[in-house]
Amino acid sequence: MTDESPFADIRGLLATMPGPDREAAAMVRARDATLTKPAGALGRLEHLVEWLAAWQGKGQPGLDRPLVCVFAGSHGVAARGVSAYPPEVNRQMLDNFAAGGAAINQICAAYGLGFKVFDLAIDLPTGDICTGPAFSEKDCVATMAFGMEAVAAGTDCLGVGEMGIGNTTIAAAIYAALYGSEAAQWVGRGTGLDEAGIGRKVAAVEAALAHHAGHLDDPLEILARLGGREVAAMAGAILAARLQRIPVVLDGYVATAAAAVLHALDPSALDHCLAGHVSAEGAHAEVLERLGLVPLLALGLRLGEASGAALAIGLLKGALACHRDMATFAQAGVSGPSAA
Amino acid sequence: MTDESPFADIRGLLATMPGPDREAAAMVRARDATLTKPAGALGRLEHLVEWLAAWQGKGQPGLDRPLVCVFAGSHGVAARGVSAYPPEVNRQMLDNFAAGGAAINQICAAYGLGFKVFDLAIDLPTGDICTGPAFSEKDCVATMAFGMEAVAAGTDCLGVGEMGIGNTTIAAAIYAALYGSEAAQWVGRGTGLDEAGIGRKVAAVEAALAHHAGHLDDPLEILARLGGREVAAMAGAILAARLQRIPVVLDGYVATAAAAVLHALDPSALDHCLAGHVSAEGAHAEVLERLGLVPLLALGLRLGEASGAALAIGLLKGALACHRDMATFAQAGVSGPSAA
Repeated sequence: MTDESPFADIRGLLATMPGPDREAAAMVRARDATLTKPAGALGRLEHLVEWLAAWQGKGQPGLDRPLVCVFAGSHGVAARGVSAYPPEVNRQMLDNFAAGGAAINQICAAYGLGFKVFDLAIDLPTGDICTGPAFSEKDCVATMAFGMEAVAAGTDCLGVGEMGIGNTTIAAAIYAALYGSEAAQWVGRGTGLDEAGIGRKVAAVEAALAHHAGHLDDPLEILARLGGREVAAMAGAILAARLQRIPVVLDGYVATAAAAVLHALDPSALDHCLAGHVSAEGAHAEVLERLGLVPLLALGLRLGEASGAALAIGLLKGALACHRDMATFAQAGVSGPSAA
Repeated sequence: MTDESPFADIRGLLATMPGPDREAAAMVRARDATLTKPAGALGRLEHLVEWLAAWQGKGQPGLDRPLVCVFAGSHGVAARGVSAYPPEVNRQMLDNFAAGGAAINQICAAYGLGFKVFDLAIDLPTGDICTGPAFSEKDCVATMAFGMEAVAAGTDCLGVGEMGIGNTTIAAAIYAALYGSEAAQWVGRGTGLDEAGIGRKVAAVEAALAHHAGHLDDPLEILARLGGREVAAMAGAILAARLQRIPVVLDGYVATAAAAVLHALDPSALDHCLAGHVSAEGAHAEVLERLGLVPLLALGLRLGEASGAALAIGLLKGALACHRDMATFAQAGVSGPSAA
């Protein structure tokens, strides 16, 4: 891979990622110590507010403009019977999102979250990864750039999710390429495959790994060969959020594959990311552990469409409300701990 | 214990507890199967909506009038240095709740939950359980009755929590009496005790168990001897909710002690209860397991004041919104699973 690779710009951006604003996090900790509760009594909620502050770069973090983005792609490998649902569901679900009928619409409405869907050429499937690359390196980079543009300026927390029949096969192939081991270890039921379907899915991942053998050392090449448009766009969005100091909440098994590609390029690339949940899809828990991400929720979700990320942002709202609006010991005239 | 015991009325009410409305739960399952998502894809959220339906007795359950109740009590045992905070914090925190400055105020505001605080003679501590009963059986029953009255008619989900300096010692004593084993197994840091404080707390629980030995077979006698007003009131509220078909979300370590007393009287008494979270207080996870309750959240909270219950009800709102407002496959024109 030389500098003239289509991936050079992505590598360049990775080199410019900002770190956490430790001063902002310290401001949160300092205020937290004054609030009318025992030190540490809000547990992980306190750490989440510090995390928001560190990555927003604001000692008084906000959640006034949270945005949930769903990226939708279509996959050639779906023709191999690797999903319980037919590919035409892609277009139908885009219509359902637009009409406000999907689960994610209700979750965003319940918690006051902005919601955008991005149609990544849904009627034009990527190539079948068993017989060739999903798309060219150039198209992969262009799709990452599209994902970067999707992150609206002024967003203060970004939920990242996806929709695309066949994309748990794509994610399994990416994990197998990144982490090795048997294909079967990474393959799960997706939207509800039966045993025969699982067998086809394992076979598809194995075929893809065999076809691309020898070309799977570079995470970005893995993304172009085994990925898909929504996965590339999510990777772009996660990276763009970092560059704009927007904390990211990841959805489940497929969204995490986009994150895993970035992590393989630079282990610090996900420091601004929270795993919204651990899904019911078998290997998700193991992937999160590899990425050093501790999921906020464990609800047995396996829907995608950013549902778990949005629920997690709903919980973040409660965490921030405590930090922002609680009275201090001094304001409330509450006594502190007794002297030992 | 004869029928003339002050506890006879409580036993009588336990015998009249309604069971789940299986028809209502079946209606939820039937609608769920029509919604635009793979079967089971919303995981535990789907079960939570069934649970709401079964205990509200409504095929179309609601969360329009959720109510979070905090019961506040004062404990003689607090004089033994078993808390990091002095007892005067009780009154100060009641003022803080009233002024809207506590964590629970912010959480209820964030998720649109009703909130009520009940002052259970906060300036009159119960007796020191190390040297006598917390209160008489008659007062215990009267306090349970007060808790029953606290459950407002029309409430569609009840969050149950507490505040009271010294009450994690009370809860530990109740668990030790109900379940046996060493006092130290049930004792944790509460609001943030140091090692010396933990030692005093273990000693207090041991002293209480020794003093009341031979009188700890009946769960209601345990409640009167080792409990406290907020614990008795929570037990009453949980029972009253059952009788009124109101699903209950339990807060943490101390609220669960009230639930454990009811469970010891009748193992089905908590079937309408959800454990909102598992707290950082050491033994809470074990108690929940004994009660057969799987906590919804695990956030390392150790605040009390119904904070974990309220966060869980916030999550329930998202679950119900999906069930109530999602489009069906027919409405959205989305294809179902492919034929196998």
